[in-house]
Amino acid sequence: METAFLEWLRTQLPDESADQLGLRDDAAVLSTAGAANLVAAHDTLTDGVDFLLEECDPRRVGRKSLAVNLSDMAAMAAEPVAALVSLVLPRVPTVHGNALELAKKLCEGLLPLARRFNVSIAGGDTNTWSGGLVIGITILGRESNGQVLTRGGARPGDAILVTGSFGGSILGRHFDFEPRVTEALVLNERFELHAGTDVSDSLSIDLAHIAATSGCGVELHAAAIPVADDAHRRAAATGKSALEHALTDGEDFELILAVPPREAERMVKEQPLSTPLTNIGQFIKSPRLWLHHADGARSPLEPRGYEH
Amino acid sequence: METAFLEWLRTQLPDESADQLGLRDDAAVLSTAGAANLVAAHDTLTDGVDFLLEECDPRRVGRKSLAVNLSDMAAMAAEPVAALVSLVLPRVPTVHGNALELAKKLCEGLLPLARRFNVSIAGGDTNTWSGGLVIGITILGRESNGQVLTRGGARPGDAILVTGSFGGSILGRHFDFEPRVTEALVLNERFELHAGTDVSDSLSIDLAHIAATSGCGVELHAAAIPVADDAHRRAAATGKSALEHALTDGEDFELILAVPPREAERMVKEQPLSTPLTNIGQFIKSPRLWLHHADGARSPLEPRGYEH
Repeated sequence: METAFLEWLRTQLPDESADQLGLRDDAAVLSTAGAANLVAAHDTLTDGVDFLLEECDPRRVGRKSLAVNLSDMAAMAAEPVAALVSLVLPRVPTVHGNALELAKKLCEGLLPLARRFNVSIAGGDTNTWSGGLVIGITILGRESNGQVLTRGGARPGDAILVTGSFGGSILGRHFDFEPRVTEALVLNERFELHAGTDVSDSLSIDLAHIAATSGCGVELHAAAIPVADDAHRRAAATGKSALEHALTDGEDFELILAVPPREAERMVKEQPLSTPLTNIGQFIKSPRLWLHHADGARSPLEPRGYEH
Repeated sequence: METAFLEWLRTQLPDESADQLGLRDDAAVLSTAGAANLVAAHDTLTDGVDFLLEECDPRRVGRKSLAVNLSDMAAMAAEPVAALVSLVLPRVPTVHGNALELAKKLCEGLLPLARRFNVSIAGGDTNTWSGGLVIGITILGRESNGQVLTRGGARPGDAILVTGSFGGSILGRHFDFEPRVTEALVLNERFELHAGTDVSDSLSIDLAHIAATSGCGVELHAAAIPVADDAHRRAAATGKSALEHALTDGEDFELILAVPPREAERMVKEQPLSTPLTNIGQFIKSPRLWLHHADGARSPLEPRGYEH
């Protein structure tokens, strides 16, 4: 199965270039020329948690598995270079065919995204077993503009900028979102950024991660948070508010950035991306998380979302 | 669960050094200083295929998951630097406790090996689900001595050298083997090596991989093949010959090297390693695989072993 799959996969890749060595040897070899630091992340998706294989097109699963990893590169403002793909496939046929057919469909979903972001499929591992589908990807990238964006650099007074909008990604966006790789590279090139992350668990949890790692707190302005149309749609079904969905749903894969206030003003004014940049609050010295409401009242912001 | 696990894991690691950034941020950052090429591999182990969780100590599973990846670095003569650990854990308790307890035991097995080979645990991913245990590791390393050892460099006339002995690893060695990292680095530093791989599928399959990738064939001398005691023990139980076990069992994780004949002579005479180096045959121009027997007869060598 692995042999047949790799033979097929090689026909799908641009050419038998050196950076695909890992597909036919024990490991991949990547040139580190021109970058002082390598950036590496791994995210695994599992059936029943990140997707329901019975109910969805494996191409969307394959796409998502690469997209969440690309989003980790965006979170670090790193330029993605190569991916290692680990497939653990059910041995018994699924509604999507046998193991080989399933593997091909997964790749048909992830390869176009890899091509678009110039990511070579450098290697990986393929296994079959008696269990369900697991797809793990390791993404390797290079720092851009001499700086890696971590969660630890936010300072009191920094503005909280976010890309896009939040909430209700379960309606489809958690599969089809655009990883903010290009956006992160553009911003890291043109502006002074102090810290960053991407929203996987939820806006409130991932913002709390930045605050905790940076040793500061947060004042969030409820009225400023860009609430996605999907959050309103979900709210109509769940009875929770759209704002609550925006704060706790997760899998938005938008960027949260800590930016010096004057720089933030310039960025919001210039709007240098094709997706909106919004100022939703600021980091504060006290290590508390506050949500400010339109009527002037404030309440503690409780980080909630999906806990792995 | 992931938060509690990462808190515990950080107490087990040497210090909160920069190369563990991936445990508390979106990705790991590794310095590439001093190496032109990065070497990267990923191997995943699954319950029921690579181990039987019910019947074995999870520490041995954790150790094996890192060891097979270290063996991939050895196969490339690369120096391992960092690992990303991906755990997919059963949500319901196993005989080894709940997900957190199982995760800790896996790490208790792999961390001593990581320490011994100076590999930092740079990041990864932790998930729970309704399925069985999957443990994937991405290993990142640096080329040594300006050369990465691939499967493609064997030339007709090159001797086939192997470390250690073969067969019957199922009796325990497939868990407790020593990845030949140090051996590969020493040999790559001191001798001229043309090609190499490690034996995961089987001696016959992995040797065939070198031959096919290098565009040549093989003459193997049956009497010269170092047969492990475990192969004889298995043979007594299965009725197959010990030689057959040595050729087809797999998971020996010994090195196969293609070496110019005069260099091979010197290596076998010097025996520079603590494990024996044995000359078991040679690469030939014709793309056939032959097994030469003690009586002078030869038969086609059929690559057989475990197909993933």
